[in-house]
Amino acid sequence: MSILVVGSVAYDTVETPREKRERQLGGSASFFAIATLGRGDVRCLGVVGDDFRQEDLDLLAGRGADISGIERKPGKSFHWSGRYHDDMIERDTLATELGVFADFQPEVPAAWKDSEYLFLANIHPALQSHVMDEMNGPRLVALDTMNLWIETTPADLAKILALVDVLLVNDSEARQLTGKRSLAHAAKAIQAMGPSRVIVKKGEHGAVYFGRDGVLSVPAIILDDVIDPTGAGDCFAGGFVGSLSEAGATRDSDDAVFRQAMLDGTVTASFCPEGFNVEGLLQIDDAAYAARLATLRGMMVP
Amino acid sequence: MSILVVGSVAYDTVETPREKRERQLGGSASFFAIATLGRGDVRCLGVVGDDFRQEDLDLLAGRGADISGIERKPGKSFHWSGRYHDDMIERDTLATELGVFADFQPEVPAAWKDSEYLFLANIHPALQSHVMDEMNGPRLVALDTMNLWIETTPADLAKILALVDVLLVNDSEARQLTGKRSLAHAAKAIQAMGPSRVIVKKGEHGAVYFGRDGVLSVPAIILDDVIDPTGAGDCFAGGFVGSLSEAGATRDSDDAVFRQAMLDGTVTASFCPEGFNVEGLLQIDDAAYAARLATLRGMMVP
Repeated sequence: MSILVVGSVAYDTVETPREKRERQLGGSASFFAIATLGRGDVRCLGVVGDDFRQEDLDLLAGRGADISGIERKPGKSFHWSGRYHDDMIERDTLATELGVFADFQPEVPAAWKDSEYLFLANIHPALQSHVMDEMNGPRLVALDTMNLWIETTPADLAKILALVDVLLVNDSEARQLTGKRSLAHAAKAIQAMGPSRVIVKKGEHGAVYFGRDGVLSVPAIILDDVIDPTGAGDCFAGGFVGSLSEAGATRDSDDAVFRQAMLDGTVTASFCPEGFNVEGLLQIDDAAYAARLATLRGMMVP
Repeated sequence: MSILVVGSVAYDTVETPREKRERQLGGSASFFAIATLGRGDVRCLGVVGDDFRQEDLDLLAGRGADISGIERKPGKSFHWSGRYHDDMIERDTLATELGVFADFQPEVPAAWKDSEYLFLANIHPALQSHVMDEMNGPRLVALDTMNLWIETTPADLAKILALVDVLLVNDSEARQLTGKRSLAHAAKAIQAMGPSRVIVKKGEHGAVYFGRDGVLSVPAIILDDVIDPTGAGDCFAGGFVGSLSEAGATRDSDDAVFRQAMLDGTVTASFCPEGFNVEGLLQIDDAAYAARLATLRGMMVP
């Protein structure tokens, strides 16, 4: 089925205690699109500058993404630069240069308005709403956001949240959004805002799904080595929505299909930190995926 | 079966953003003993001062603990005082008054040397070794420790670790003990030190069991309200060892019995933060326990 993602297509400069990589392919839409692993026809809506390398667009296309919705504009591509601490979890943002992304006005191509799944990656909630308005009733809408929008544009965020089926946030964002310390209370409060299903991402501690009928806690796969965790959350979303697409899920489907999607999101995301930027994701093949899914199930069965 | 625990029997003064409780029953041996829930004949080895209230000893005895190994000495009981931050996770230790605990020299009563399970709670590793030396080959030995001993008495700790079957530590301690950032590598390094099974406790993120054949990740039960998490780690240990005792496990048992014990440790520990000190633990009854075990299983089944 078809999956529309709107988000950043960007360059990341990432510094870890061991290595520094400059201007590598990044951005939420890029990670998401590659992470769908061909489980749906993924369509990318975004903008890049005239500095963006054709080979990076070719990489996305080579992974099955329709990149005809990525507009190229005069100026610089969105560029994020950050440095990880020794624990490879904490990080300092060194620079956020919006470039052409500052004036991003996503317009959904006519042929894409019937896309069956919509992932609104972490961009200004007013833009998320605008994209949502242009769609012809997708089967399911998932949304990511961040502390910046929770703090600065709460009304815009509330407006789009009311229309969303699945919210993906991390634990501190869930607490900030609701003012509730208990994740159980936070999830309930979020469900009252609109999304009937809430996923709380906890990085190396896994992710928790608050569904209609219950809660599923999925551990993160324990990695031998973490090279660069940038983008893991978007990879989770790509694996998750890709899984729902493959299953033909709708917003009214049973929790079971969402529980399976949680496993697929977790397995997909586990490859991300094993390489810089999208490199870990590119290592996924059927055998590696199946082995890791078996590992994950083994970790969950008492 | 019989379970010997050596550890602190103490008073805790706990301050939270909402309330302060002074000199309440605490200490690792107290939490552990109550948390075994009558699954084994638990024997407490410890020391208290002449300020220790008889009603607190009676409480332990009333929960089935044999307290004849708790010596009463002239002086003050061990007293810990701490203040929790708003997140109810971070805390500042305000005072640690060892009192009679400073000269604690545990001597295992002759009738207890045949105890089948031994839990060496978090005390000086040389004392842990001394107790171990006095035992007549228990079926299984579990040990808890902390950053203080990892930093200040590594040789003593290494000596006792070589004799232990199960180590329970938190994630930062596992990393500090081994110098390994990856929990997979840390667990492997610990297994090379002696314990064939390692449990890494992660508080609200649950606990991970590294066994002989695989890894089990158990989420923490999501609580509506956290009153006081003090002692939850010792409650986990009590539930865990109690479960092994009830099953008659030995150090050579299959992982399956340890996996079940992980669930029992998690369920037992989940009651602890719901009240001050041991009060949450005292709320456990069969129905509440069964309901929470079902909740936990539900959280783990995709």
